[in-house]
Amino acid sequence: MKKVLCVISSGMDSATLLALAIDQCTDLDDDVEAVSFDYGQRHRKELEYAENLCGSEGIRHDIVDISAIQPHIGGSALTDDGIDVPEGHYESDNMKLTVVPNRNAIMLTIAFGIAVARGAEWVGAAMHAGDHAVYPDCRPAFVQAFNAMQIVAVEGHGHPDLRLWTPFINLKKSHIAYIGSNLGVDFSKTWSCYKGQELHCGVCGTCYERREAFRDGGVTDPTIYQQEPVLA
Amino acid sequence: MKKVLCVISSGMDSATLLALAIDQCTDLDDDVEAVSFDYGQRHRKELEYAENLCGSEGIRHDIVDISAIQPHIGGSALTDDGIDVPEGHYESDNMKLTVVPNRNAIMLTIAFGIAVARGAEWVGAAMHAGDHAVYPDCRPAFVQAFNAMQIVAVEGHGHPDLRLWTPFINLKKSHIAYIGSNLGVDFSKTWSCYKGQELHCGVCGTCYERREAFRDGGVTDPTIYQQEPVLA
Repeated sequence: MKKVLCVISSGMDSATLLALAIDQCTDLDDDVEAVSFDYGQRHRKELEYAENLCGSEGIRHDIVDISAIQPHIGGSALTDDGIDVPEGHYESDNMKLTVVPNRNAIMLTIAFGIAVARGAEWVGAAMHAGDHAVYPDCRPAFVQAFNAMQIVAVEGHGHPDLRLWTPFINLKKSHIAYIGSNLGVDFSKTWSCYKGQELHCGVCGTCYERREAFRDGGVTDPTIYQQEPVLA
Repeated sequence: MKKVLCVISSGMDSATLLALAIDQCTDLDDDVEAVSFDYGQRHRKELEYAENLCGSEGIRHDIVDISAIQPHIGGSALTDDGIDVPEGHYESDNMKLTVVPNRNAIMLTIAFGIAVARGAEWVGAAMHAGDHAVYPDCRPAFVQAFNAMQIVAVEGHGHPDLRLWTPFINLKKSHIAYIGSNLGVDFSKTWSCYKGQELHCGVCGTCYERREAFRDGGVTDPTIYQQEPVLA
């Protein structure tokens, strides 16, 4: 019996992670569960999308509210109404405004706490190679160090082989689009945009990245953008 | 300029950690700050005591509310009213009921997020050798692995030398009592008891441990216990 607890937002990476986890769980008593974090993000819409992604697969989904932490860390365009969400390409310098200090480490340690409580064997997370330049806690070196830390931190508790599973860590986002497409993911049910308005804005970093991933992965982009991103 | 962010409860270890941090900050523009966590502990009284410990030293103190995480992790006698706080010696088997899965890793990653935001150089924590047997995330190996993880996780953000400072990690609690006493800590203003009633109960694990530490450290115990612990 394998239990996988996936940390998800509502983006194409998360949807593909869930699909891949389901695909890897081949035994009848294997189980995929998911958890999302409410960290006061202005794109809270992603939480509803995450709920729906799981609902349509019959996957248990919990939302952990860590928004009380945010005022103490502060200062990111993702959470602070006083800072505009930067427009332009994801890897450009101004995208650093979207860095919430230590966010992945915080969310993943909480996910590991939940995984210990539930006896899960894998904690799945969807970081990929395109995140490396902007977020230090999305790099392969982080995953390795994080696993090493967690092995010590929960020794004797939970599943003895509990570890962080990051199947996309060395892939480009376009590869994820391709994999997701092959697994039958319905990308129209995913949400990426940081602005969290009615439609995907088309000009924030994650809209650029989304559009580019579909194009480079050779996958039809079902997204209706408010403004069409101008891709290089 | 050195800034130290101490993660504190209200116990004798935390009070001594604060005193030691102040002692180490010898330059005029050095700064000690503190943070405590509300994780739904039934001994919430410790939060008031922590507030007072800092207030009397003029130290900035923030309480981070992570109680919304608790229901997802659950199942510890420290937080779950359905489980009795175990009585008896701290290192005995039933004390494992007080383990909140991954608690230190969770609190410390949040503290590191705050430390990055504020440019702190040290995150201080008061774990000691007596914790090792019960809590895997209080061991020296954990501190080492945690620091290695954090170096990767926040590279390029915050203070370049940011690290976890655990001055008591290889000391017994009785040594902490002795050091605190030498630094002039007023232990009557500290709170340890897990039960969080009017007086220290005297029979929970942390009351035993407290009493023993004063005795073995040769320090007068100012605590009034409801029941006198019977020490070996």
